Amino acid sequence: MLIQINRSDKFREECGLMAVWNHKEAANIAYLGLYAQQHRGQEGAGVVALNRQANSKFSIHKGRGLVSDVFEEFDFNLLPGDTAIGHVRYSTAGGNVMSNVQPFFAEISVGRMALAHNGNLINADELRAELIADGSIFSSTSDTEVVIHLIARNPAHQPLVENVIGALKRVKGAYSFVMLFQDRILAVRDPAGLRPLCLGRLGDSYIVASETCAFDLLDAEYVRDIEAGELVEISGDNKITSYFPFARQKESPCIFEYVYFARPDSSVFGRNVYEIRKRLGTELARESPVKNADVVVPVPDSGTAAALGFAQETKLPLELGLIRNHYVGRTFIEPKQTIRDFGAKVKLNPNPGALKGKVIVVVDDSIVRGTTSRKLVAMLRKAGAKEIHMRISAPPTTDPCYYGIDTPKKEELIASHKSVDGIAEFIGVDSLAYLSVEGLYRAVNAKNGTMCDACFTGNYPIGTPQMQGKKQAPLF
Amino acid sequence: MLIQINRSDKFREECGLMAVWNHKEAANIAYLGLYAQQHRGQEGAGVVALNRQANSKFSIHKGRGLVSDVFEEFDFNLLPGDTAIGHVRYSTAGGNVMSNVQPFFAEISVGRMALAHNGNLINADELRAELIADGSIFSSTSDTEVVIHLIARNPAHQPLVENVIGALKRVKGAYSFVMLFQDRILAVRDPAGLRPLCLGRLGDSYIVASETCAFDLLDAEYVRDIEAGELVEISGDNKITSYFPFARQKESPCIFEYVYFARPDSSVFGRNVYEIRKRLGTELARESPVKNADVVVPVPDSGTAAALGFAQETKLPLELGLIRNHYVGRTFIEPKQTIRDFGAKVKLNPNPGALKGKVIVVVDDSIVRGTTSRKLVAMLRKAGAKEIHMRISAPPTTDPCYYGIDTPKKEELIASHKSVDGIAEFIGVDSLAYLSVEGLYRAVNAKNGTMCDACFTGNYPIGTPQMQGKKQAPLF
Amino acid sequence: MLIQINRSDKFREECGLMAVWNHKEAANIAYLGLYAQQHRGQEGAGVVALNRQANSKFSIHKGRGLVSDVFEEFDFNLLPGDTAIGHVRYSTAGGNVMSNVQPFFAEISVGRMALAHNGNLINADELRAELIADGSIFSSTSDTEVVIHLIARNPAHQPLVENVIGALKRVKGAYSFVMLFQDRILAVRDPAGLRPLCLGRLGDSYIVASETCAFDLLDAEYVRDIEAGELVEISGDNKITSYFPFARQKESPCIFEYVYFARPDSSVFGRNVYEIRKRLGTELARESPVKNADVVVPVPDSGTAAALGFAQETKLPLELGLIRNHYVGRTFIEPKQTIRDFGAKVKLNPNPGALKGKVIVVVDDSIVRGTTSRKLVAMLRKAGAKEIHMRISAPPTTDPCYYGIDTPKKEELIASHKSVDGIAEFIGVDSLAYLSVEGLYRAVNAKNGTMCDACFTGNYPIGTPQMQGKKQAPLF
Amino acid sequence: MLIQINRSDKFREECGLMAVWNHKEAANIAYLGLYAQQHRGQEGAGVVALNRQANSKFSIHKGRGLVSDVFEEFDFNLLPGDTAIGHVRYSTAGGNVMSNVQPFFAEISVGRMALAHNGNLINADELRAELIADGSIFSSTSDTEVVIHLIARNPAHQPLVENVIGALKRVKGAYSFVMLFQDRILAVRDPAGLRPLCLGRLGDSYIVASETCAFDLLDAEYVRDIEAGELVEISGDNKITSYFPFARQKESPCIFEYVYFARPDSSVFGRNVYEIRKRLGTELARESPVKNADVVVPVPDSGTAAALGFAQETKLPLELGLIRNHYVGRTFIEPKQTIRDFGAKVKLNPNPGALKGKVIVVVDDSIVRGTTSRKLVAMLRKAGAKEIHMRISAPPTTDPCYYGIDTPKKEELIASHKSVDGIAEFIGVDSLAYLSVEGLYRAVNAKNGTMCDACFTGNYPIGTPQMQGKKQAPLF
Repeated sequence: MLIQINRSDKFREECGLMAVWNHKEAANIAYLGLYAQQHRGQEGAGVVALNRQANSKFSIHKGRGLVSDVFEEFDFNLLPGDTAIGHVRYSTAGGNVMSNVQPFFAEISVGRMALAHNGNLINADELRAELIADGSIFSSTSDTEVVIHLIARNPAHQPLVENVIGALKRVKGAYSFVMLFQDRILAVRDPAGLRPLCLGRLGDSYIVASETCAFDLLDAEYVRDIEAGELVEISGDNKITSYFPFARQKESPCIFEYVYFARPDSSVFGRNVYEIRKRLGTELARESPVKNADVVVPVPDSGTAAALGFAQETKLPLELGLIRNHYVGRTFIEPKQTIRDFGAKVKLNPNPGALKGKVIVVVDDSIVRGTTSRKLVAMLRKAGAKEIHMRISAPPTTDPCYYGIDTPKKEELIASHKSVDGIAEFIGVDSLAYLSVEGLYRAVNAKNGTMCDACFTGNYPIGTPQMQGKKQAPLF
Repeated sequence: MLIQINRSDKFREECGLMAVWNHKEAANIAYLGLYAQQHRGQEGAGVVALNRQANSKFSIHKGRGLVSDVFEEFDFNLLPGDTAIGHVRYSTAGGNVMSNVQPFFAEISVGRMALAHNGNLINADELRAELIADGSIFSSTSDTEVVIHLIARNPAHQPLVENVIGALKRVKGAYSFVMLFQDRILAVRDPAGLRPLCLGRLGDSYIVASETCAFDLLDAEYVRDIEAGELVEISGDNKITSYFPFARQKESPCIFEYVYFARPDSSVFGRNVYEIRKRLGTELARESPVKNADVVVPVPDSGTAAALGFAQETKLPLELGLIRNHYVGRTFIEPKQTIRDFGAKVKLNPNPGALKGKVIVVVDDSIVRGTTSRKLVAMLRKAGAKEIHMRISAPPTTDPCYYGIDTPKKEELIASHKSVDGIAEFIGVDSLAYLSVEGLYRAVNAKNGTMCDACFTGNYPIGTPQMQGKKQAPLF
Repeated sequence: MLIQINRSDKFREECGLMAVWNHKEAANIAYLGLYAQQHRGQEGAGVVALNRQANSKFSIHKGRGLVSDVFEEFDFNLLPGDTAIGHVRYSTAGGNVMSNVQPFFAEISVGRMALAHNGNLINADELRAELIADGSIFSSTSDTEVVIHLIARNPAHQPLVENVIGALKRVKGAYSFVMLFQDRILAVRDPAGLRPLCLGRLGDSYIVASETCAFDLLDAEYVRDIEAGELVEISGDNKITSYFPFARQKESPCIFEYVYFARPDSSVFGRNVYEIRKRLGTELARESPVKNADVVVPVPDSGTAAALGFAQETKLPLELGLIRNHYVGRTFIEPKQTIRDFGAKVKLNPNPGALKGKVIVVVDDSIVRGTTSRKLVAMLRKAGAKEIHMRISAPPTTDPCYYGIDTPKKEELIASHKSVDGIAEFIGVDSLAYLSVEGLYRAVNAKNGTMCDACFTGNYPIGTPQMQGKKQAPLF
Repeated sequence: MLIQINRSDKFREECGLMAVWNHKEAANIAYLGLYAQQHRGQEGAGVVALNRQANSKFSIHKGRGLVSDVFEEFDFNLLPGDTAIGHVRYSTAGGNVMSNVQPFFAEISVGRMALAHNGNLINADELRAELIADGSIFSSTSDTEVVIHLIARNPAHQPLVENVIGALKRVKGAYSFVMLFQDRILAVRDPAGLRPLCLGRLGDSYIVASETCAFDLLDAEYVRDIEAGELVEISGDNKITSYFPFARQKESPCIFEYVYFARPDSSVFGRNVYEIRKRLGTELARESPVKNADVVVPVPDSGTAAALGFAQETKLPLELGLIRNHYVGRTFIEPKQTIRDFGAKVKLNPNPGALKGKVIVVVDDSIVRGTTSRKLVAMLRKAGAKEIHMRISAPPTTDPCYYGIDTPKKEELIASHKSVDGIAEFIGVDSLAYLSVEGLYRAVNAKNGTMCDACFTGNYPIGTPQMQGKKQAPLF
């Protein structure tokens, strides 16, 4: 029996972005930047390069799978030019969804362009319907394609930036975009600033990336974040022009980047992720300590930093009670006589030496459906843990994300229909506690409600998609 | 040194088409039909299936390479539905041209659709420019994409067939199309009927293919040719509706299908290709016999039928003086110390047993640049041929094709700038003769000028593309 | 349903050999020589190179599949040295038989060596049992491995050639060997000379190959055949030493090389294959003409030369009534609703233009089980042939080969248990005739019984393997 | 520029073993057991299955690369039978070393057998020379092959176990073997017990593995270790017979399994690895604390457990100052303009949030050549660490291993020729300390000198290979 193994444990980020301006090996740099951001999307990768010196020739290489697969022994001479953009993505569907792998490339009224998107547009269906009715053709199922159409439909004679701004004003949702035109790169964040985007510098080159860890690998220097609602134009001889075309609105950067997605060594929205993640554990320990606990056990890797904070606050020893397997393939062939909890054990193995006879505090960052946690708890018990107290370094995940993170539907989220006690019973722990929303904000060091916390509160700062009836059947 | 070997010897057909209606395993049938038409395009293949029973879900599988590569151990459950279209193509460029592999799929005003094209549009650049100026986005470099845009831009409320006809009336050029909509297949040939397209029947299913050899493999029955300027609609329970939307004009089916492209066991434009190809040899023998010749030697495989006709007419023995290698790979690694005529010898080996000391008539179907023929002649001489007289079963190829066949530019065609004597000298034969245009038509059994013979005469029945300045730089 | 397609139609040669001495790019030359001999074995290929300048380092590259697959984009710097041997083979089994792919390499008493074999040893089982009882280990199922053991077991202090001769004197059967030692190449044919082996020259290099077509591709010159029972040593600065270590015995070169295996443009046993193959048709026409026949139709490609001879002798027109598909993959996916005679049609398509309403003489080289011929005949009838008379350019295949050709067991050979009339009835022809054994020898221009004709007569010139009880179960 | 990345950071274990007896899906179970032991060898994997019900047919599948690559979508029906052995290995060479991938299979005097080896024989060269002189042929460069020859050379009529024991008595070195014969499995550890091997039980099946983590994945139960010098025979209906054929000698299990190799969740030599690894940190902290330190930073993953012990003992906070990248491919394409410390940064990224302005204690398990540590230290400084004190949870690695671990030569080990101060200077730390040998034994809870500690002390318990002159040139 062939068992599919998800590399991402729980949630799946939609995308990571890269853009490179004025570097002799732009495509190679973009590729390495994507590689550092591989955790933001593991199902597809692509780079579009532009050779400004040779007739503005665009070259594309993209494919399905990890960056290292798509670019295995790739010859970067096939992507010539001193500017490039790149994209990693997670894709939901099986079948052949090659047409959804970004960056998208098109020839339109303003010339040739390529575009990559991190986020999710909430009025894409309406815009798509309108554009189709008006004669546009859509060749992907991606919401991103509407943006290219909107730019294409603006009159070509007005300044390009006006054109793009006009298009952006029509879309609603979460987005960071990098766009490559024949004479410039545009990088933009939506007015609410839901998704991150940073500007860096590598020698004489400018670089744009979703997370700063891309800069670190490249020995590039972090300059600053692109601001919420800002459109940055990079052109000519490294000329940076900044536009703020949107009416000011409340910013709502995604708090979940801190909880789960971003790499801990990155800075996101100007703050170090690791420090925040540790403080999530500190706050959690203050709110919900465990009396008589012997040890703190992280669920690696995403729960480790919070577990550290928890352990330091409580002065309990941290123990590696779950060992992560570093050689997980895409699929496994399980014998017909099924092995109990096989899918979970392939990724994590309980470590009896750290568990036997102990009262343990297991620290994780979230519980989604509850089924994996239940298996984990069973494994820990079998390995000899005496009592298991689970602590989650975020509030209960009650609501789906419409802003670029792939979450299950509301009814599949266990916290949407079970109380904390109900969840505790389902997963089989002796006690369970979540961090409060207030604790979450304290850890982030931000005022309550100043970020997007919709997955925990249901408060969607920019609304949800209207999906009345015209929800599309899957195309591919 | 890595040597690239072209599988196609000389010219490269642009496409082969398939469509299947009302068959439980439509995609599998389409794949086999493409396989039988592999000679019409060896660089890319694809099938789009439509599951009318399941929400009109379209599924796509396409890729670069031979049909057998693209569909190696493919699971056709991934292409469900009882209707499908397919395409094989030759593509000119290196780099990543995945976006040009057909069939194309799009969601447009009239719903979802897929389209595959054999031929070449001569006003594609103009239409593309106009559409782009008007807000369309192009994501391939293919001329075919304009047709989808034209359909997309017509009002959705008029009948679908009207819509398609409106689009077709705007394009000029050579085309056979198969189109798959949610409730029908459309199959159409341009008013001049330049490219072939046939209708067949397999039990309760209708099948459309470029050549009848696809029907033979499938045990399907040939029904009739789609006529020049005819649009055939297949819908519902095998309902066939025929439209003739265009003003009648002179038909000009491509005479070169007989000379070179079509499989000899196919019927094309209602006539058996093999019989015509043999008569080309017969006419050639009558026009340009070789006195004192000992044997007739075909250049396999495309020259074999004509050589047979030549031999039968002259009563000379046919001898297999050139042996074709059946295991030619895509590339060869030649030693640094280059082997003489390596590329030619990899494909054809002279057979001394048939050549030594003999006056030979070599029959081939065409001479393009002359370089391959020159190598061939050198090989034959080295193998011991006493005299070499070359006979070509078609007139000199003086002009490029703009109607769907990939020919070199005019200046690269040796017959465009050298006389027959000049060519003879260049390739090193003792004598050289081509079939006359009149002889060609006699062999085909058609009146002079009733087919497209532009590659031999420069008479382009529907004009040539206007390529004034706006010829595009390569995108990919 | 996945259909496996055999590339080889009927019989499967066991091997083709190459050896190169004193060429800077020895491995590359060996590879090209194998490529030219691909028809002699399509399931595995390998090259062993020896770098005499660098510590006598041997390097190996081998794999399963066609030469072009095994060496696709191979870097020949990984096979350094100025001498090399190579091998192509057909392998019978599924599963992982990598261990059977040749050349074999071993470190033994006389140093390191590599060896490649064309043929079949008839006392291999006995020798293997004896060697195993005496402490040898066998890691393949190949009969060839015993030869290495026999050499290994001879005392190392006697001259190397003596050593090899001692080993060869113990084996019985059909063999041509090329062996690579640290300071020489040995090339040897068994005393009966059952399998071919030729010596050629390319500039300052010596080359050994099974067939002369390898020399043609390389622009090398044919020097002479290795004689039956001759061992040729190539060493030092192109020193050739010839040994005749065996008691003279009757020579019996394999007549089937002429009928079926060798490439028609090769010379084998000193004679041009194509000429003989045509004379097979001539003799067949004399022995068994068909009254009132309209046309002669070859079964391509192996029957074409004989058909030509038949047609010339009878003055009947040759017609390409069966068209061979040049793009046959390894497997096909057939719809569940099976297509009649699919496996046959994938390879050959009847050409109605040459068949309709005609009395045809179909010329083939052999009938093995009769099932493929029956399908062929059915296809020809369906395509309109009025009468079908089959003529086989060899005697009935009644007995299996034990000398290096992969034939079915005796009971599976239709001619072993059916009369010619019975076969005619089974395959459904209007008449059937085979060439007589006498006619065969006339065509070859040799006296009756001077070659191995065991597959037609059951007269095994050097006996058959004793397979009493100790026949091994398959290992892999 | 293509950069090769080693997945294993420092040392490379030679092998991991699996054997399965009496399980319907033996090969599948063996594969999963190898998968759990992937850290013991990442360059090759193989499984040999034996179908006792079907003529004792052996089937083999092996290949180069990770277990998940070699068995990707593998059909285990190709490895039928209820018993199997498996192997993962690290291989040293480039080129085609397929012939070295284990298990080895052979047909020998006692029948067919397969064998897999973890360890290294120190008298293999002598035995090989002797066997070759006596007529054996060697087809790999592996020391393991001599064992099969030795078994093969013993008289077949004595009991099989006697035979194997006779062979084992001739070899010197470190070994755990699993052997598969037609009617039994043998599992054996050398008399010094250098390499681990455990017996487990899964329902009605017996399982043998190098580490207990294989049992955990399979839900199998750990029964006991195979003892040093014990040969365990598993046969018939789960009959276990134990032999102690060797004269008792001092046991010397490898202490480095605890320090570096084994998975922390395994038990090796009867002790939990994780607990020991933590105590290494505790002892280290006691011996070499760092005054004024702010934080303890582990080098993941191998240094993490010791860092935990260090932090707990010193009450310093543990901080994740180095983040491990989980998506490291085999190769990277670096721009021509080289990125500083690229190879190191691809695997580990410094986390400024945990480092800036701090006095850090970096805990690692070893320093090999010193170059990687130097890069690491540079990275940590660049990320803002104020002082860097490195602590190594083992003594200095001064001597190479000859017992199955791939270490650099003595002269490449930095500790063989530099003092601790010299190393500290070279890698650029503010202070450096290693654990003492006594501390190491305290952590393991064993008496000094009761294990093999040769890599730290140069005391080789069973001697070193005599490599006088007859060291072989590389074959492949």
